[in-house]
Amino acid sequence: MLPYNIDHVAIAVRDLDAALADLKEQYGTEPLSREVIESQGVEEAMVPVGASYIQVLQPLGPETPVGRFVEKRGEGLHHIAFSVPDIEAAIEHLESTGVRLIDHEPRVGGGGNRIAFVHPSAFAGTLVELVELVEEPT
Amino acid sequence: MLPYNIDHVAIAVRDLDAALADLKEQYGTEPLSREVIESQGVEEAMVPVGASYIQVLQPLGPETPVGRFVEKRGEGLHHIAFSVPDIEAAIEHLESTGVRLIDHEPRVGGGGNRIAFVHPSAFAGTLVELVELVEEPT
Repeated sequence: MLPYNIDHVAIAVRDLDAALADLKEQYGTEPLSREVIESQGVEEAMVPVGASYIQVLQPLGPETPVGRFVEKRGEGLHHIAFSVPDIEAAIEHLESTGVRLIDHEPRVGGGGNRIAFVHPSAFAGTLVELVELVEEPT
Repeated sequence: MLPYNIDHVAIAVRDLDAALADLKEQYGTEPLSREVIESQGVEEAMVPVGASYIQVLQPLGPETPVGRFVEKRGEGLHHIAFSVPDIEAAIEHLESTGVRLIDHEPRVGGGGNRIAFVHPSAFAGTLVELVELVEEPT
């Protein structure tokens, strides 16, 4: 069950426009896409950096998971996402190890990809997302 | 000054052996290298995931930067590192934007690479490392 790659690293921010402007000024990067995902309570932008993305997340309100994260811990690194070839197989494997999962069934995330979150208790306090891409990497 | 890639995502842990065992069990990944870096107060392992690495950091003691991070915030995501073609040019560019840098001159990091840290105040509370690799990516 080796992941293909680090699909993205997510950073929670208070102001998506300001964060994207900072990234552009500092690193010359620009978002490839931007969308509101009501089911996750975020507006997110995907900023390509080499073979991966920086995912910049702005909560839609304080009572969302990312909103609570920002209130409690401030802006900053939020989660890491691994692209996997078969998300059901990855979930099944992780279940077999006894770690705690947030999603036992894939759901639809940004870009229409199939995603599932693994609880931070599984690996060193780190929220991990599994992503099965709609389009396989070339 | 576009970064080449996300060179690594660093995760601070209390127990490097346990964290590497968890990564292997959960994701089938194994470290490519492991070294003590006294100047940074860490033992670190580089675990390849696709085109990037997970860098697992164990502090050498509580009075190190990573030791203080773990005491204050617990284990978890610590910083993100961008590989850049020319680290002096990258530092000079960032200085020109007025953001706060931790290192104004490159120093030697893991694997003999040249590195510099940018203060988390520059971008959304996120500690960013610049890395000029000893060997250019192929």
